[in-house]
Amino acid sequence: MSEYAARHKDDRSVGIVVPRFYTFGEPPQEMRLASGATLGPITLAYETYGRLNDRRNNAILILHAFSGDAHVAGVHQESDEKPGWWEYMVGPGKGIDTERFFVICINILGSCMGSTGPASTNPATDQPYALDFPMVTIGDMVRAQKVLLDHLGIGRLHAVIGGSVGGMQALEWCVRYPQRVKAAVLLATTTRHSALAIAFNEVARQAIMADPNWCQGQYYGQTKPDMGLAVARMIGHVTYLSDAAMRLKFGRRLKDKTDFSFNFDADFQVESYLRYQGAKFVERFDANSLLFITKAADYFDLEREYGEGSLVSAFARAQCRFLVVSFSSDWLYPTYQSRNMVQAMKKNGLDVSFCEVEAQWGHDAFLIPNPRLSNLMRGFLTNGASPQS
Amino acid sequence: MSEYAARHKDDRSVGIVVPRFYTFGEPPQEMRLASGATLGPITLAYETYGRLNDRRNNAILILHAFSGDAHVAGVHQESDEKPGWWEYMVGPGKGIDTERFFVICINILGSCMGSTGPASTNPATDQPYALDFPMVTIGDMVRAQKVLLDHLGIGRLHAVIGGSVGGMQALEWCVRYPQRVKAAVLLATTTRHSALAIAFNEVARQAIMADPNWCQGQYYGQTKPDMGLAVARMIGHVTYLSDAAMRLKFGRRLKDKTDFSFNFDADFQVESYLRYQGAKFVERFDANSLLFITKAADYFDLEREYGEGSLVSAFARAQCRFLVVSFSSDWLYPTYQSRNMVQAMKKNGLDVSFCEVEAQWGHDAFLIPNPRLSNLMRGFLTNGASPQS
Repeated sequence: MSEYAARHKDDRSVGIVVPRFYTFGEPPQEMRLASGATLGPITLAYETYGRLNDRRNNAILILHAFSGDAHVAGVHQESDEKPGWWEYMVGPGKGIDTERFFVICINILGSCMGSTGPASTNPATDQPYALDFPMVTIGDMVRAQKVLLDHLGIGRLHAVIGGSVGGMQALEWCVRYPQRVKAAVLLATTTRHSALAIAFNEVARQAIMADPNWCQGQYYGQTKPDMGLAVARMIGHVTYLSDAAMRLKFGRRLKDKTDFSFNFDADFQVESYLRYQGAKFVERFDANSLLFITKAADYFDLEREYGEGSLVSAFARAQCRFLVVSFSSDWLYPTYQSRNMVQAMKKNGLDVSFCEVEAQWGHDAFLIPNPRLSNLMRGFLTNGASPQS
Repeated sequence: MSEYAARHKDDRSVGIVVPRFYTFGEPPQEMRLASGATLGPITLAYETYGRLNDRRNNAILILHAFSGDAHVAGVHQESDEKPGWWEYMVGPGKGIDTERFFVICINILGSCMGSTGPASTNPATDQPYALDFPMVTIGDMVRAQKVLLDHLGIGRLHAVIGGSVGGMQALEWCVRYPQRVKAAVLLATTTRHSALAIAFNEVARQAIMADPNWCQGQYYGQTKPDMGLAVARMIGHVTYLSDAAMRLKFGRRLKDKTDFSFNFDADFQVESYLRYQGAKFVERFDANSLLFITKAADYFDLEREYGEGSLVSAFARAQCRFLVVSFSSDWLYPTYQSRNMVQAMKKNGLDVSFCEVEAQWGHDAFLIPNPRLSNLMRGFLTNGASPQS
């Protein structure tokens, strides 16, 4: 028994999950993207948990955040040390109950976690796409997801659920395919990036592009732009936390020392944490995917795309029930942005529940086990009761 | 007449100012630093405005922020396009009135604006110090400033005034040399960096060190780490503004276009602004100076240095009147940090006035013309009346 399995033998987990792949859009049936460019074939990596019922009406689509993947819960093999990224929320009897719901998560287009992205082979050249990969939008990601759901025979979703960039996809689902969505849970997200969020993303992109190993994106098979990508990730981690979160987590505590080094070593724990996060990230993520996905998030603008600048008009297309959750210490997508979307929903007479969860962990709070959030989720998905409106 | 002179002919300005330099600490009289290392000779670049009166009691020391210099006001020659960095505040009849006060500003130790720093020649090698430059603390900077003031024959200062890292120096003056300071104005500053402020500085440092042209600091006479330094500056600019400031200044407005480029050009004005600020900064600032000065700011910790962890104890040494000003949208050194220091001052029975200025421009607000701030300054410096306490 693996360490993980031993540690969790009494937990109720989805257990061993098989990674799946679906490919479509073979030439000449490429997908036409929002930019006008075409892309194909497209492979989507996905995982499913639980069983689709006979009426095919118990499917829930989970949309992952920018650097996430399709591996939401459980393990791929017994020896895996760590389960999927939302293990605390998804499983038998959990907030998203896999005994009741058929749960699907799809790696987004443009990523590097199994779905087609800039590191994939360009059939036109038999080389990785690199910057020849076309710019994909949140809308393009969602359109590709719909092709897969059609293939799986899933008509109307019981719910779409997403946090952060996953929440943008959930919003896109609600207005692009209103008849395909019965309910939506939007966590720590926004209908469009503020200038501040764009600024952070732009600095992260510039950090990658400043790395000489980036080579205009043509680094596959060569030395990768790890230094630039690590700096980009450190910037990300500052935005995922908050002033309060960092004060609690690190304060001014020193790392394995009692006095300053008077050099450029990591004196403070927060420095050491950031360096570690940067170094860890480059092992699993592709720098070009970061460029494409952050740009897609910056472009996302529900009011521009669907409401001619009016968020109220944009939500006129939506039909589903909503649960909107913000986190008090999230300064990447602060609560006022969630309130804005809730107001626009209400002006359209939509059924919307809103909750600002008191949480000290900043933007990342939705990823951290939180019984309150699990209860909110369970209540909303099972009986539609409004936990707070 | 220069464009600047023509534009400002009716303004009251200090006019043409002569840059000055003072050198001390020739071996074997090097200065011993907080780290235990020694440094010498030390040159300090400084400027003065107005006249020292016969009683030598009208001197005001202005302490500049991290990337600033001694050139506070006026021009160096008629053809200069731009005046010093605090032109709106310092001059005849202005908030800091040069008809009344003798104003001095000294470029900090470790900088690259005329004072000794990592780009200066190491007398031991006849090469630039680079990383052989010893780590200097805010305390070291202030001790060097005092040597210069002694040389100028200035005993007790009418006031020390500083914003941001300049405010840290002002704080250090008040507790290190309490008998030398009659009053202090502390703008947008803190008694010690939060984990968030350290995090931003650390990411900026990592961006520089990630640039292969940095070469462990040995880039003088070679290609400089401009890409890394530009990214570091962009990070800085995000912290100097704020969510609200960026929303007002940029929002989601596009740069010279009506639609997205669907590539990695600067689509949004905020992207273009950051790229411009990064590119401009590398023309005037030395990457190693950024490393040393940000580290000095991170190390600064008034309670640790003077109060054994207690800010109240640290201020027990202080004797001067204080004016503390925070800015409502400053999220680098938020108002709560100013309130903390004000409380600690009051617990020591010190005469302290505190004002949170409503300003949308974030941390940088003290550099932007603001009649309210000028009035606060004038009132505090001339009659000691508390504008708000």
